[in-house]
Amino acid sequence: MTLPATNQRIDGKRLWDSLMAMAEIGATPKGGVRRLTLTEVDRQGRDRFRAWCEALGLAVRVDAVGNMFARREGRDPTRPPVLMGSHLDSQPSGGKFDGALGVIGGLEVMRTLGDLGIVTEAPIELVNWTDEEGSRFGHSLLGSGAWAGVYPHDKVFALRDGEGVSVAEALDAIGYRGPHPAAPFLADAYFELHIEQGPILEHEEKLIGVVTGAQAQVWFDAVITGRDSHAGTTPPYARRDALVAAARVIDLVDRLMRDRGEDGRGTVGQLQVIPNSRNVIPGEVRFSVEFRHPASAEVERLADEFPALAQAAIAGTGCTLDLTELFRFGLQPFDPGCVDLVRQAARRLGYPAREIVSGAGHDAVYVSRLIPTAMIFTPCKDGLSHNEEESIRPEEAAAGCQVLFEAVLARANRER
Amino acid sequence: MTLPATNQRIDGKRLWDSLMAMAEIGATPKGGVRRLTLTEVDRQGRDRFRAWCEALGLAVRVDAVGNMFARREGRDPTRPPVLMGSHLDSQPSGGKFDGALGVIGGLEVMRTLGDLGIVTEAPIELVNWTDEEGSRFGHSLLGSGAWAGVYPHDKVFALRDGEGVSVAEALDAIGYRGPHPAAPFLADAYFELHIEQGPILEHEEKLIGVVTGAQAQVWFDAVITGRDSHAGTTPPYARRDALVAAARVIDLVDRLMRDRGEDGRGTVGQLQVIPNSRNVIPGEVRFSVEFRHPASAEVERLADEFPALAQAAIAGTGCTLDLTELFRFGLQPFDPGCVDLVRQAARRLGYPAREIVSGAGHDAVYVSRLIPTAMIFTPCKDGLSHNEEESIRPEEAAAGCQVLFEAVLARANRER
Repeated sequence: MTLPATNQRIDGKRLWDSLMAMAEIGATPKGGVRRLTLTEVDRQGRDRFRAWCEALGLAVRVDAVGNMFARREGRDPTRPPVLMGSHLDSQPSGGKFDGALGVIGGLEVMRTLGDLGIVTEAPIELVNWTDEEGSRFGHSLLGSGAWAGVYPHDKVFALRDGEGVSVAEALDAIGYRGPHPAAPFLADAYFELHIEQGPILEHEEKLIGVVTGAQAQVWFDAVITGRDSHAGTTPPYARRDALVAAARVIDLVDRLMRDRGEDGRGTVGQLQVIPNSRNVIPGEVRFSVEFRHPASAEVERLADEFPALAQAAIAGTGCTLDLTELFRFGLQPFDPGCVDLVRQAARRLGYPAREIVSGAGHDAVYVSRLIPTAMIFTPCKDGLSHNEEESIRPEEAAAGCQVLFEAVLARANRER
Repeated sequence: MTLPATNQRIDGKRLWDSLMAMAEIGATPKGGVRRLTLTEVDRQGRDRFRAWCEALGLAVRVDAVGNMFARREGRDPTRPPVLMGSHLDSQPSGGKFDGALGVIGGLEVMRTLGDLGIVTEAPIELVNWTDEEGSRFGHSLLGSGAWAGVYPHDKVFALRDGEGVSVAEALDAIGYRGPHPAAPFLADAYFELHIEQGPILEHEEKLIGVVTGAQAQVWFDAVITGRDSHAGTTPPYARRDALVAAARVIDLVDRLMRDRGEDGRGTVGQLQVIPNSRNVIPGEVRFSVEFRHPASAEVERLADEFPALAQAAIAGTGCTLDLTELFRFGLQPFDPGCVDLVRQAARRLGYPAREIVSGAGHDAVYVSRLIPTAMIFTPCKDGLSHNEEESIRPEEAAAGCQVLFEAVLARANRER
């Protein structure tokens, strides 16, 4: 299938203004955004998004885990919808564009369709997935994962944040526990526009990343148990310092990453010390470990070898290490047909583009297990993301949105 | 001066029963004690202590920061009193004996003097110092420090806990803001009985620790700054991981401690990761560093060398380290005469004893800046303290109390 010739254009200024308007919600002094999932701030963002959609005459429905779907009907009611979207939640100290670009970009696509009086063959639905970031409840891609059946709902509702608030309680608190089941429905395709969150496109001066799939990854939870005792009175031979043991594992993760060269990823991002008192030797340390690589085989090897290497690393500390593998998945390839629509749109528009494998997890990864999926990346300054200094240029946002518009339009109007 | 021959004995069972009676106040399910300073639970402990003292005919007075002094008159009203005591407050999840042994042990000394109809030359005062632990208001040795003039009173009263309650408000709330100024008065000596809070006495099968002084210490605050960025998309060459850098400093602190053998102490007890999210490379890590050693010169060397060694340790991580030295003090020696009274008492009683330097801070450390002071240590199981499993044997408590009795009696009756 090929794209129809078109001079139909999205409104880059309107897109940018709406991105900035959304960024006001949870804005931080340093120019970033703190819009943690299912908080009061998240509710404000959701309400503004819902109001924008309803102003376009879109019907907004919410499912049991708070995923939002804004539907624009097509000419043929028998056709399954074409989905597009991303997420509005952010990291604790995140940027304006991670997630928001895909949702607000989809909104601009809807607005442009309305301006131009276009009625597509298939319906189009714009999605705001709940809790993509995982910073509050510890599981990223929570909403899309629940929708796709990756996470059992009982487990999702029971997850608790640092204050002991459950997902179910948080959903009720902001009024976004919707009546619709969080279950997959038949859809024709899913397109997600997102910033690259890495330095590659900017480094190679490309405007569009044609995302062919997502990196393989494995995530662990680690608990090191020592013994808390008095820092001033406990001699070296009697110490079982869980933080000293954790430091060795952190160093190991970094070395295992660097052993794999530029494609390696290995990170301890979250760590908690117990009791965390100045003059008490830490008795327990809990932390996260993750590895990623474009090659499934490398992640398999890391996932299999890491536990024994970590146990060896803490030998002699008097501590014990308990590792739980949270999940492991290989390279997730996207749908060739959908990817080709993105490739063709970029080419037709004359945007410098390259194929790229996503280093980050995205809602598209879980959706693609059930629905033909593709992603569009745009550059971000210095490859910075999950950072308040995250920054993109308006013309980059507009280019990504134009590609999304043309890919979605082509898919929604394709012959069957 | 030498000790008088005596077969006067304290009542070990009565001592133990009173320790257990005090441990009922703030008892935790795990067998520990939670008696945070100036709380309702602390008030109950203070009231019970006051009632016990008044039943002996002791006059109890309370000073402006809640320190309690129970006085037993001597034959010579011109003599300054001999002080003994410790503290009744505990850590959030503390044990039955840390602090309580010194106060209840002193009470048993008073009861024994009464039973035996002894009138000492000098008066004797039993002290319960306010807030030794520092867990609620953030400054340990608060009551003895205020008494000794280490902390200005305005500052002490203005300190606030996590809920914003000030020391002044907490004192009023439990009715222990006394009429007497919290100022040092002339005293002849101070003796404090305390559990070792370390494993050395148990390890060497000693019953009594003759404490010759308190360790030299230096405390730092450390802040490592890197750059928070996406864990999945940021290649190794572009990472500035503050936690990887912190791990190297934690390892350095441990090595510097072990380089100094059994007397070395080096601990990172408190650590905070920012933003502390699973898939974000940590951009900032804040942590505490402390070193202790019986030799002032070793602490001086550590304090001077550590900053440069730490900077070298994080070289190549792309991070910066900012170190702030909070305080540094040398070995605080106790009074040779008072220490010798403890040594002689242990020898006369045939208790296996050794000289020991206190690794922990104690009220005795501040008191000793003004008044001739000594401490008596008794073993605790596995050296455990600041832990609900803190445990000692009744015969160990009795031995320590007997030494306290004989040292205080000798001091109070010495010729001048």
